[in-house]
Amino acid sequence: MTDTEIRFGILGCADIARKVSRAIALAPNATIAAVGSRSIDKASRFAAANGFPPSAKVYGSYDAVLDDPDVDAVYVPLPTSLHRRWAVAAAEKKKHVLLEKPVALSAEEFDHIVAACEANGVQFMDGTMWMHHPRTAKMREFLSDSERFGELKSIHSCFTFAASEDFLKNDIRVKPDLDALGALGDTGWYCVRSILWAADFELPKTVIALRSPVLNEAGVILSCGASLHWEDGKVATFHCSFLSNLTMDVTAIGTKGTLHLQDFVIPFEEGKASFSAATKSWFTELVTDWLPRPSEHTVVTDLPQDACMVREFARLVGGIKGSGLSPDKKWPTFSRRTQLVLDAVKASIDKGCEPIAIFN
Amino acid sequence: MTDTEIRFGILGCADIARKVSRAIALAPNATIAAVGSRSIDKASRFAAANGFPPSAKVYGSYDAVLDDPDVDAVYVPLPTSLHRRWAVAAAEKKKHVLLEKPVALSAEEFDHIVAACEANGVQFMDGTMWMHHPRTAKMREFLSDSERFGELKSIHSCFTFAASEDFLKNDIRVKPDLDALGALGDTGWYCVRSILWAADFELPKTVIALRSPVLNEAGVILSCGASLHWEDGKVATFHCSFLSNLTMDVTAIGTKGTLHLQDFVIPFEEGKASFSAATKSWFTELVTDWLPRPSEHTVVTDLPQDACMVREFARLVGGIKGSGLSPDKKWPTFSRRTQLVLDAVKASIDKGCEPIAIFN
Repeated sequence: MTDTEIRFGILGCADIARKVSRAIALAPNATIAAVGSRSIDKASRFAAANGFPPSAKVYGSYDAVLDDPDVDAVYVPLPTSLHRRWAVAAAEKKKHVLLEKPVALSAEEFDHIVAACEANGVQFMDGTMWMHHPRTAKMREFLSDSERFGELKSIHSCFTFAASEDFLKNDIRVKPDLDALGALGDTGWYCVRSILWAADFELPKTVIALRSPVLNEAGVILSCGASLHWEDGKVATFHCSFLSNLTMDVTAIGTKGTLHLQDFVIPFEEGKASFSAATKSWFTELVTDWLPRPSEHTVVTDLPQDACMVREFARLVGGIKGSGLSPDKKWPTFSRRTQLVLDAVKASIDKGCEPIAIFN
Repeated sequence: MTDTEIRFGILGCADIARKVSRAIALAPNATIAAVGSRSIDKASRFAAANGFPPSAKVYGSYDAVLDDPDVDAVYVPLPTSLHRRWAVAAAEKKKHVLLEKPVALSAEEFDHIVAACEANGVQFMDGTMWMHHPRTAKMREFLSDSERFGELKSIHSCFTFAASEDFLKNDIRVKPDLDALGALGDTGWYCVRSILWAADFELPKTVIALRSPVLNEAGVILSCGASLHWEDGKVATFHCSFLSNLTMDVTAIGTKGTLHLQDFVIPFEEGKASFSAATKSWFTELVTDWLPRPSEHTVVTDLPQDACMVREFARLVGGIKGSGLSPDKKWPTFSRRTQLVLDAVKASIDKGCEPIAIFN
């Protein structure tokens, strides 16, 4: 451990925390300092199973992690219904907050988290890993290129996976008291994020849920979709589901170019990731072949995207801690806009697929 | 020319007729017998420019082609507003009809064409070439496989191209008196066809246009989209446009598998075409990689898809002519269902994006 390493505490032993623990270990500017669970035995087993350093502390409560002066930042993978309570508590203890998605059950609820982070001068970031893959920066370059891509006109995003019977009965993501947004808050979060990302985080003015969302008996969304509409005529659609084979598509079409990828949330391979970019696509004479064809771009990454995320978060925390910089407001803004759109989709579903206006 | 060759007459010298002329020449069971234009000079130039056989006749009217006893079948690439008149006239002269898409301005109008074909015992087929590519049959096998694909849950289709300024001013596809359905009748036809194809031609019960379609000053659609909803919960979305870079996507997602292709209307290369098929996609431990990954399937074709279309049409005509078989009703049924969905999208647009019920 060096002076520049940010010391992470982990709240809870969620499955995803195993991956983020590895990411903290891999990131050059981060280290695991503590893990807390409601059961100290569970925390101990988690620390052992995930190869935590001997210096890492193990606590039988989340509060103990927040009270530890050797913890700079917390990673919070708790069920969404607990986000507000624990993210606010962490901020009030001056811990920087890396929070799993969806960030809250509503933007209104999320605003309490943001307010607590701002009041306490701590960095906020959500756990959307793919945002930090170097592929994402390369794709952004393409989308921003007026010659290669032009003006964005439409986006389609899809994230589905076929949940097991056990998942559909027991996972927190199908429980109204834990993750009430269901598939919309889980896979839908990524779809909405990808759409906003492609639109450079400009919010749509109207959101309309697609008809016939699938809900479980408790009213939690298992599958749904929506269309998003911008002032300038841009349109996006997405589909998210727990009931279909694993699929992760983003297609963004501009006046001059097209971006395609089919593994946007988790790249097919950890060490490198590809996307397809097409510019001024057309045909040969007699329309027998494409000329030019889309080209495949592969981006190698030195760290897995989850470790890139931790590295970026720790870099920002380091700047605040070491150099007195202010927290970067970009990340909570991205989170809030994603949540605003989720809220609008949920409201549209609740109102029988009526259009919902979005106000920032 | 052999006894088994079907003799084609071509009505008009549309750009697409150049490609279909080549297809007729390439198909082993078809030959070009005649071309007719309102201007005999134009017809002569067209015949010369496209290497018609010396035996091919050149006429200064469409009627002359229909009156030629050496013509078995006609290919009709005229503007949509002329389809009913000339397809009915052809059928009444006992000519089999290969008709460009959209087949009509409405299903009601198309029904007159089907009635004329049935009354005269002639084969009807629309000019949707990709239906005849051997790749399409391979993809159908995948979609029909309960183990590899499972139950179809969602489909997304997109066909856009960036029309030139000249196209947007002068092409028949932006003229209300010629191709009143605009982009919906042109690129949207293919989207709707691909969706119905994936759904094994089961009609959706409801269609809802996406908000903010783009119309030109004459009210012709330049860009639009819709969602389609089936009784069993299946959902599809599509986007069609003259205003975005050339893109041709179909994604069909089932409970167990996913089909992707990005060149469904015109394959990237004429001699072979690929699609991506994924089954029971999941991840490695810690969700770092996909296991298994989607696999790419390439299908080589001995003939271009347009020639496959002509070969299939000529085969059916040959069966009627030579063996007294009845016309195959599958093809007009596919056309009619596609047109029914187009009608519903158009009606939804005209009614401010209200849901439109579809009745077969």
